[in-house]
Amino acid sequence: MLRLAELSPDVQAAVAQTRDNVAALHAELPRWGLVVWTAGNVSERVPGADLFVIKPSGVTYDQLTPEAMVVCTLDGAKIDDGTAASLAPSSDTAAHAYVYRHMPEVGGVVHTHSTYATAFAARRQPIPCVLTMCGDEFGGEIPVGPLAIIGDDSIGQGIVETLRGSRSPAVLMAQHGPFTVGQNGRAAVKAAVMVEEVARTVHAALQLGPVESLPDKMVDRLWERYQNVYGQH
Amino acid sequence: MLRLAELSPDVQAAVAQTRDNVAALHAELPRWGLVVWTAGNVSERVPGADLFVIKPSGVTYDQLTPEAMVVCTLDGAKIDDGTAASLAPSSDTAAHAYVYRHMPEVGGVVHTHSTYATAFAARRQPIPCVLTMCGDEFGGEIPVGPLAIIGDDSIGQGIVETLRGSRSPAVLMAQHGPFTVGQNGRAAVKAAVMVEEVARTVHAALQLGPVESLPDKMVDRLWERYQNVYGQH
Amino acid sequence: MLRLAELSPDVQAAVAQTRDNVAALHAELPRWGLVVWTAGNVSERVPGADLFVIKPSGVTYDQLTPEAMVVCTLDGAKIDDGTAASLAPSSDTAAHAYVYRHMPEVGGVVHTHSTYATAFAARRQPIPCVLTMCGDEFGGEIPVGPLAIIGDDSIGQGIVETLRGSRSPAVLMAQHGPFTVGQNGRAAVKAAVMVEEVARTVHAALQLGPVESLPDKMVDRLWERYQNVYGQH
Amino acid sequence: MLRLAELSPDVQAAVAQTRDNVAALHAELPRWGLVVWTAGNVSERVPGADLFVIKPSGVTYDQLTPEAMVVCTLDGAKIDDGTAASLAPSSDTAAHAYVYRHMPEVGGVVHTHSTYATAFAARRQPIPCVLTMCGDEFGGEIPVGPLAIIGDDSIGQGIVETLRGSRSPAVLMAQHGPFTVGQNGRAAVKAAVMVEEVARTVHAALQLGPVESLPDKMVDRLWERYQNVYGQH
Repeated sequence: MLRLAELSPDVQAAVAQTRDNVAALHAELPRWGLVVWTAGNVSERVPGADLFVIKPSGVTYDQLTPEAMVVCTLDGAKIDDGTAASLAPSSDTAAHAYVYRHMPEVGGVVHTHSTYATAFAARRQPIPCVLTMCGDEFGGEIPVGPLAIIGDDSIGQGIVETLRGSRSPAVLMAQHGPFTVGQNGRAAVKAAVMVEEVARTVHAALQLGPVESLPDKMVDRLWERYQNVYGQH
Repeated sequence: MLRLAELSPDVQAAVAQTRDNVAALHAELPRWGLVVWTAGNVSERVPGADLFVIKPSGVTYDQLTPEAMVVCTLDGAKIDDGTAASLAPSSDTAAHAYVYRHMPEVGGVVHTHSTYATAFAARRQPIPCVLTMCGDEFGGEIPVGPLAIIGDDSIGQGIVETLRGSRSPAVLMAQHGPFTVGQNGRAAVKAAVMVEEVARTVHAALQLGPVESLPDKMVDRLWERYQNVYGQH
Repeated sequence: MLRLAELSPDVQAAVAQTRDNVAALHAELPRWGLVVWTAGNVSERVPGADLFVIKPSGVTYDQLTPEAMVVCTLDGAKIDDGTAASLAPSSDTAAHAYVYRHMPEVGGVVHTHSTYATAFAARRQPIPCVLTMCGDEFGGEIPVGPLAIIGDDSIGQGIVETLRGSRSPAVLMAQHGPFTVGQNGRAAVKAAVMVEEVARTVHAALQLGPVESLPDKMVDRLWERYQNVYGQH
Repeated sequence: MLRLAELSPDVQAAVAQTRDNVAALHAELPRWGLVVWTAGNVSERVPGADLFVIKPSGVTYDQLTPEAMVVCTLDGAKIDDGTAASLAPSSDTAAHAYVYRHMPEVGGVVHTHSTYATAFAARRQPIPCVLTMCGDEFGGEIPVGPLAIIGDDSIGQGIVETLRGSRSPAVLMAQHGPFTVGQNGRAAVKAAVMVEEVARTVHAALQLGPVESLPDKMVDRLWERYQNVYGQH
């Protein structure tokens, strides 16, 4: 088992920073109503190392200190961080690891069972791009991934294959729930918040009548503008 | 009336610990939006004694100190805990007691009227197992119990008979609401949180179209894995 | 104008206590999600006097100190409480006053526009008694009152006439919202919380199929038991 | 670029006060559940100057100090406020500026993507005036504006043209979300809170059956009374 203490001081510092980030980002999941109990997780790639940091399994959001975060290799194996209380990583760790191995541009991954995104996933129905907010953030409809078998790489494969065919940073895994990615953990959390917001609003819209998709050209324009203009640069 | 002061020091210590647990666990019910006002209750069996601890009747969640918790025999009779302010137990005490008498493996019971689980109960409709989360936690569909008469053992009997025919730790009592069980109070609270989460999501899914149940083999696999792999061991 | 300073010390003390109660009870309205901004109000009769205390008009829930509460006669006229900052009473004061004049057993009145109760009111549809919780608290279906003209006693009359034909402490005023009553302000607030809880749950139940009303005899039994057994006596 | 330091002391004081107002008002958006992440903004006109203050782009509600607020001319150009950390204004700034240029009576503008108002906007369906609360606050149905092109004045024009044909302080921009106006920032925030409350309630009402619009005369009476009687004068 790889030992944290044997890694370079730079990597150890990067791990410590990533643990701080990941612990803090977990607070956003209950804050925005995306999770109950322990049912959601955030991970982030450690810059400059083939490692990522993820939530421990079955631990409540109140107990998520930086020290409780688990450090894993890109194969999803926990490394020895030298603490006696070292915890087992999330039961979704293999899926996160698969994404990091196959999508080098991804620096953060989030998985939740947020209500309305999961409701679309239960019906295996993509979320149509009927709102400017969806064009901005997702660049088109939010796609559905396959119903994946547990215990092999099916979930990770389904995520990666679906995301590669789309501009969307979110995929709705069939009868399971959303996974989101981003350039870092914070961006992936933002996508998890936004996929639920879009899903909830489109759900409400569709309950009382049909809705037209936005024209493709408008979606392109919204998405390009949002990538380049929005926020502080 | 049995007197707490006459019990062995070990049992008195176990009662004190269980009161702490039950008082703390009640805070989870409003936290996860399962209850309003005083409309839900948690109980836990006292280890090593034929006793359990339950919420007092009609007391708000703000006032639930360990001292306010009521200690009962497995017949549902309050014991004399030596305090002048001793409170009457929950009006659902007989149902909890029946479960403890007939299901020795159960260490905790929770009753709520959480919105979406109760909506399925109102229609007497089991919650179909259409989400991996439902397979994980409930091992199949979440069953409906009978419409029970008030004032005898009908509610307790209905809970026990329904749970015995299922892997689910939750039963939706017809036109009433969910009861959940677990190896201790915390596990029963978790099941109460999860039954509402699953009910809310499946409700949303069914509003906009049909949903397929997961294959039985996949449900078996999810459930077995979740019992054995999830969490810290 | 009646002056508070001219009333007996006993009445002044009762007014002060009622102001404390009414100010504190307003915090329950946003806490249980019954109101936004300033859109709901609580009043309570002053024991031993022909007075009641009510929310000032258009003031936010953060600013509701006991001193801000307005003291009115049973005709709905504000009395001079001797403070320079004296505020105008709620625009619903006339309706509260009408209830106090015509229902001497009522000690508290609450008005909200809580979402699901108001949705039934918008359709002028009583809430059917399909849940044991509704039998317990309301003793049958929750009735609808008339669409009342603004500016005379129509609202108060509609509340009183509808409540007199029912065991329910709540009435859904057509296309307006719920009014609830109780033996004091706290009981009326409880009824306001419970009418929304029942409305939300029955709304969810009816969205996915029909629901049967509970048998009348069961409702009678639930209601009688709840009046006599529930809570601390 | 206009420099804040060159403006008169009175204008500088008014800018400082407006920054305080706008920073504080942003806290109301998450408080009432109108926004997630950074997806909503408040602006307010600076009294006595051709300036307004608006949210910086892509900054979370936790970080919205008065100093972070951006000061703009009525053309939507940021002025130099002399701070090194000066932020870019909201990506919706051009729409706010257009409203201030063309509606001199408007002192505050708010934009959100609140769920139910946006669901009506997605269907391009006005919110019918079926509740007294809607008559009070909006004086009739809440209108829908056009689907506007991004990058020119289409959004601002659509807002202004739609509001001019209505008593409503809220417009639902098609497939986008609500914009609200008021005599100051606080009034526009109130309208944003109320449009979501009305939208949510009417959504729930319409889910289970048709609802009749209030008679025009009653709406007129509600609206006139609310403008003149409600609140503290």
